[in-house]
Amino acid sequence: MANSKFEYVKQFEQPDNILPNTWVVVRIDGRGFTKFANKYGFEKPNDKRALELMNAAARAVMAELPDITIAYGVSDEYSFVFHKTCVLFERRSSKLVSTIVSTFTAYYVHYWPTYFPDTPLSPPLPSFDGRAVCYPSVQNLRDYMSWRQVDCHINNLYNTTFWALIQLGGMDATEAEKTLKGTYAADKNEILFSRFSINYNNEPEIYKKGSVVFRDYEPVEPGTHNAAAEADSLAVPVQQSKTQNETDRKRRAKAPIVVEHLDIIKDDFWDRRPWLLSNKPGKIPKEV
Amino acid sequence: MANSKFEYVKQFEQPDNILPNTWVVVRIDGRGFTKFANKYGFEKPNDKRALELMNAAARAVMAELPDITIAYGVSDEYSFVFHKTCVLFERRSSKLVSTIVSTFTAYYVHYWPTYFPDTPLSPPLPSFDGRAVCYPSVQNLRDYMSWRQVDCHINNLYNTTFWALIQLGGMDATEAEKTLKGTYAADKNEILFSRFSINYNNEPEIYKKGSVVFRDYEPVEPGTHNAAAEADSLAVPVQQSKTQNETDRKRRAKAPIVVEHLDIIKDDFWDRRPWLLSNKPGKIPKEV
Amino acid sequence: MANSKFEYVKQFEQPDNILPNTWVVVRIDGRGFTKFANKYGFEKPNDKRALELMNAAARAVMAELPDITIAYGVSDEYSFVFHKTCVLFERRSSKLVSTIVSTFTAYYVHYWPTYFPDTPLSPPLPSFDGRAVCYPSVQNLRDYMSWRQVDCHINNLYNTTFWALIQLGGMDATEAEKTLKGTYAADKNEILFSRFSINYNNEPEIYKKGSVVFRDYEPVEPGTHNAAAEADSLAVPVQQSKTQNETDRKRRAKAPIVVEHLDIIKDDFWDRRPWLLSNKPGKIPKEV
Amino acid sequence: MANSKFEYVKQFEQPDNILPNTWVVVRIDGRGFTKFANKYGFEKPNDKRALELMNAAARAVMAELPDITIAYGVSDEYSFVFHKTCVLFERRSSKLVSTIVSTFTAYYVHYWPTYFPDTPLSPPLPSFDGRAVCYPSVQNLRDYMSWRQVDCHINNLYNTTFWALIQLGGMDATEAEKTLKGTYAADKNEILFSRFSINYNNEPEIYKKGSVVFRDYEPVEPGTHNAAAEADSLAVPVQQSKTQNETDRKRRAKAPIVVEHLDIIKDDFWDRRPWLLSNKPGKIPKEV
Repeated sequence: MANSKFEYVKQFEQPDNILPNTWVVVRIDGRGFTKFANKYGFEKPNDKRALELMNAAARAVMAELPDITIAYGVSDEYSFVFHKTCVLFERRSSKLVSTIVSTFTAYYVHYWPTYFPDTPLSPPLPSFDGRAVCYPSVQNLRDYMSWRQVDCHINNLYNTTFWALIQLGGMDATEAEKTLKGTYAADKNEILFSRFSINYNNEPEIYKKGSVVFRDYEPVEPGTHNAAAEADSLAVPVQQSKTQNETDRKRRAKAPIVVEHLDIIKDDFWDRRPWLLSNKPGKIPKEV
Repeated sequence: MANSKFEYVKQFEQPDNILPNTWVVVRIDGRGFTKFANKYGFEKPNDKRALELMNAAARAVMAELPDITIAYGVSDEYSFVFHKTCVLFERRSSKLVSTIVSTFTAYYVHYWPTYFPDTPLSPPLPSFDGRAVCYPSVQNLRDYMSWRQVDCHINNLYNTTFWALIQLGGMDATEAEKTLKGTYAADKNEILFSRFSINYNNEPEIYKKGSVVFRDYEPVEPGTHNAAAEADSLAVPVQQSKTQNETDRKRRAKAPIVVEHLDIIKDDFWDRRPWLLSNKPGKIPKEV
Repeated sequence: MANSKFEYVKQFEQPDNILPNTWVVVRIDGRGFTKFANKYGFEKPNDKRALELMNAAARAVMAELPDITIAYGVSDEYSFVFHKTCVLFERRSSKLVSTIVSTFTAYYVHYWPTYFPDTPLSPPLPSFDGRAVCYPSVQNLRDYMSWRQVDCHINNLYNTTFWALIQLGGMDATEAEKTLKGTYAADKNEILFSRFSINYNNEPEIYKKGSVVFRDYEPVEPGTHNAAAEADSLAVPVQQSKTQNETDRKRRAKAPIVVEHLDIIKDDFWDRRPWLLSNKPGKIPKEV
Repeated sequence: MANSKFEYVKQFEQPDNILPNTWVVVRIDGRGFTKFANKYGFEKPNDKRALELMNAAARAVMAELPDITIAYGVSDEYSFVFHKTCVLFERRSSKLVSTIVSTFTAYYVHYWPTYFPDTPLSPPLPSFDGRAVCYPSVQNLRDYMSWRQVDCHINNLYNTTFWALIQLGGMDATEAEKTLKGTYAADKNEILFSRFSINYNNEPEIYKKGSVVFRDYEPVEPGTHNAAAEADSLAVPVQQSKTQNETDRKRRAKAPIVVEHLDIIKDDFWDRRPWLLSNKPGKIPKEV
């Protein structure tokens, strides 16, 4: 029995390769996580265990996929960035998205008991959806990252105040919502401070800044590299010797993957870590 | 702090909605499963526990996503079919693919200890990639399903013979490969029977036919429905009353999701189950 | 000097092949034709010469591209239909669209002096834009064609009444518009008849129905063929012998290309001309 | 009669907007121009009238579409470049391609009698197909342009030698082809010089370099601008005041559109004309 009679159906597969020489961001989002958070009693406004579980899963994704240069997570979402020169899976969108989503989900379920030892998972299980977007210039990429971090800040300030009004102020959700309607950041800071003696600046960085995951090398002096301009002016394919590729691979494998809660909007973060934009591994930190 | 300055980055998201009025097949495949199977000592040529774990995960996916009408699995792959009228997630390809891949992975990891109680998972964890393909006509869809089942048959006959030569015949892999080179189905049947007294026809159906998962209603007499022609001639959007939709939803929820090992190439399977092509729920079987 | 250094830029071309086994409609529209019509003094509400020039260009397009099975034109737009089995240019969308748009434009400019002998073209010249849309089922395709013909009817009834109010009733554009605001078809018929003794039914068919262009064979008795169901149930690729293909090609080349003004919404038009949906050439009419 | 019943067919139109912040190149090619050139007796290896007709049509396209910043033509092909910030037609690919192809064709047919006064066009008429490709970085764009100009050089040197062997050397096509097989550029130069006393360097620039079309402003001193780096680092949308836009529009309209035959591979061409990459109009030359 030959299979050829039916094999014509393969023609219906349509290519979805992402435009070369662009930054690829794969963002994943928890599906129905409001309900999921309620089911497992996540703390409000932030559940530290849940965030650390997200970070552990993201770290595992980066360890399995060295082509990812940086990831940023907040709440139940995570964005993974492939360098513009990346050719993994021939840049097929569905393959990049599904691999990240699947790997992330596997670790999320697997590590669950570590972070929630007392509440085992039961169906319906947590799941994530994902999409890929590509950005031509470094500025576009950084604006994307800034967009997510500003969103983190706006939502966290709102949620912190909203839940303070409820948990400490005794309001119900409707009253709290009404109180916050039309307020600016300064108003919310004022409510927190004057009513509840909470200085928002002293809130944990993981809540205010989200989490950024990357391979760590020795930081450089700002002003000594121009990785952004170099990256922008690139034409692919980049020609590198096999020896160079091998050296890069080894240094990347040695570099620790860290989870930090830093400002990624200002230049400083990027200036000190030129490898994020250049894709050239830096020096392995001595203490590691 | 307004987020508007960065929000322009949303413009870079490109729509990926699948053409309306076509059948959508999402196929997922295990990533690096040869290595994975070795790590956990999967039996050769087929590991019943591994297949049943795949089937359990597929069943769970169908239970969570009632828009899926039928699924077919073999080895470490599974194909899920959305009816041509389906509008779930506005038919966005990345959303359909990532949701299925993530849900499947979550159950695969979660159910692992049920099927492999003695070998706990450890990193790197199992993961799957996926892609969506769309088919305009019923014939195209059925040819796709036939293609996968023929593939199952071809591979299983080969693997059964290959491993018999090794496990029962004492050959090494190279010898077995050489022995099978250029042989036809009849030759392999003959090798199995004359050398090892194995009648391939008596092998378990799950290995020979793969697994088909669907909602089960009372089968109808072949020839009494013409669901294929009806489905082909459809123009979407289908206009149904809310009452009808609600009734359909309830009947679908009541229908048991079954896993069978049947021939899906011949007409009979489809003729007896018109709901698979019509998307109109049938009668709930009395015994359930 | 080798060209290889720069040839990598070819990788940036992204495939745009249209899904197999679907009907492809390429619709072209005149660019800025309101202004263009004013410049050349087109008659209102319909300019017979301009419509016949459109039809002549469409006829020429069909003669140069035998893969087109039917075309429908109204005002400054024309829709060309490729059969679902068509593989011209590997179904690349930009190639199909640009070829039709270019060929149409060439004939429009070339035939201009035949239809407008006294007003030679001068820059800016007439031009057209185009797009391709694909339809999975015969019903979808016929609904598309019906959509365009209903649009023709609605616009022509409006325009006929609007210009009667101005040209015969002495109104200015604002008064005419106000008079017609909120009126139904019956109202417009009544205005035409009672005020201007115009029976809309007696208006020329080319204005009321638009123009349909196709290869003409001997019509068949309605009910004797079921081309729609056959077309819908097709799986591609269609296997035909070379001899059959050659015979088809010859009969198609012999068939006259006609321009008619018929109802293409009702079944009758399609029932009598099964070759439009089956793509199998009919009998050459004897009188030709 | 309402049209709503059929209007659902509009849903089948799929968006084809090109990724923002990338350079868009629309390349058009003559369809079947070998045959066409024979029909109208084009001179070999180059027909000056035919090339000038192409250039006249390209110039007209640029005059009608001010969003095009530069165009490059050789033989029967032309590439038109839209600046990376261009938002014409919402960057819809089919609209950009079809508009350029149609406008070009209209002028080609319209201007034909100016360049070929003695040989009127007759069906089948000349036509062009087209496609859009997008390039993220200035280097990618310049490499694309270089690719086309190197192609021009390679083909012209080959054709010049090939036709010299035939027209001056008395060979037939087969002999000429055989003579050139495996030769390098230096060999062809030598054949031209030693056998026919032709110094290839003295051949007309239009044949050796092709034609580059652009808006001309006063050239600047190389080294005084860095338009490439500025363009690469851009994030869109570019925020410009209405007044600035209006000023730009006027200066662009005043700038003469020139057709030159220059080296566009080296930096000098681009360094002297920063407006090509920056999209900021320069100074209008005084002599104009």
